[in-house]
Amino acid sequence: MNLKDKIRVINDFPMPGLRYRDITTLLRDPEALRELVDRMYEALKDRQIDVVVGPEALGFVLGAAVAYRLGAGFVPVRRPGRLPGDTYRYEYQIEQGRSDTLEIHKDAIEKGQRVAVVDDLLATGSTALASCQIVKQMGAEVAAVCFAMEMTMYSGRELLEGYEVFSAIKY
Amino acid sequence: MNLKDKIRVINDFPMPGLRYRDITTLLRDPEALRELVDRMYEALKDRQIDVVVGPEALGFVLGAAVAYRLGAGFVPVRRPGRLPGDTYRYEYQIEQGRSDTLEIHKDAIEKGQRVAVVDDLLATGSTALASCQIVKQMGAEVAAVCFAMEMTMYSGRELLEGYEVFSAIKY
Repeated sequence: MNLKDKIRVINDFPMPGLRYRDITTLLRDPEALRELVDRMYEALKDRQIDVVVGPEALGFVLGAAVAYRLGAGFVPVRRPGRLPGDTYRYEYQIEQGRSDTLEIHKDAIEKGQRVAVVDDLLATGSTALASCQIVKQMGAEVAAVCFAMEMTMYSGRELLEGYEVFSAIKY
Repeated sequence: MNLKDKIRVINDFPMPGLRYRDITTLLRDPEALRELVDRMYEALKDRQIDVVVGPEALGFVLGAAVAYRLGAGFVPVRRPGRLPGDTYRYEYQIEQGRSDTLEIHKDAIEKGQRVAVVDDLLATGSTALASCQIVKQMGAEVAAVCFAMEMTMYSGRELLEGYEVFSAIKY
């Protein structure tokens, strides 16, 4: 199955001139969803993953399905103020000098656990890198970083140098 | 396995006097996540589900894992402005006279499809009811509504009268 055929292109979203790849048309297709999750599972299955970390919000979709398939746990990384327990906050730079903040529960990951960071999209890689750095600061190991789609023109893979990076679909 | 043992109670969140049931401590536990998803799968597996609809954000976690397990597709229902394609907007009443809005892609569900609405929590039931009404307005059938947790004191099941309602964990 060519998964690209299932991804809709939306022109001028979220800004004029951009071609947004809308993964929701893939997710709603049972065979395509299964194929995508299975490809991500194949990339991770021999890496002894204890926990999948998924950034809000589409990282929840693929992260949870991949965690279930792996027999791993799932840990959400969220925007500030949305997790109910004690959290670590992590502020990081995104494009154009702006910053963003992620939170994770302090007890979400144990020292020494092997973690896969899973998200829908690798573009600049800033959110994934922040998620990796959170995991490392908690004393756990980033065993892999795994995406549904990769936009190679943004060179996110370079920002993630030193990590094992996998993407199921490349543009 | 007693799944309640895996759910953390956080007092006075999000408001003083409330006891918040934090499902993230269950999700991060591999055996508990598997058991929970399998229980939801068992409740849905004979209902010929084509598509699982999950409301943002924790509905993405369980909805996607259950959809994968069922061999169904997954469709996100989101807060306004976050879906890239053409959407239907649906405004609905929540507690204390306030309203909230959900959006779904216009082409996300086909007429006649059998849909399961999946979310983490049944409390008042207003978000789940809104999701069901969106599905019906699109000409599809709500075959079941399935939750990880149900807070019976809020009587959400009454609001969802006429729908098949299942919850894996009751409080």
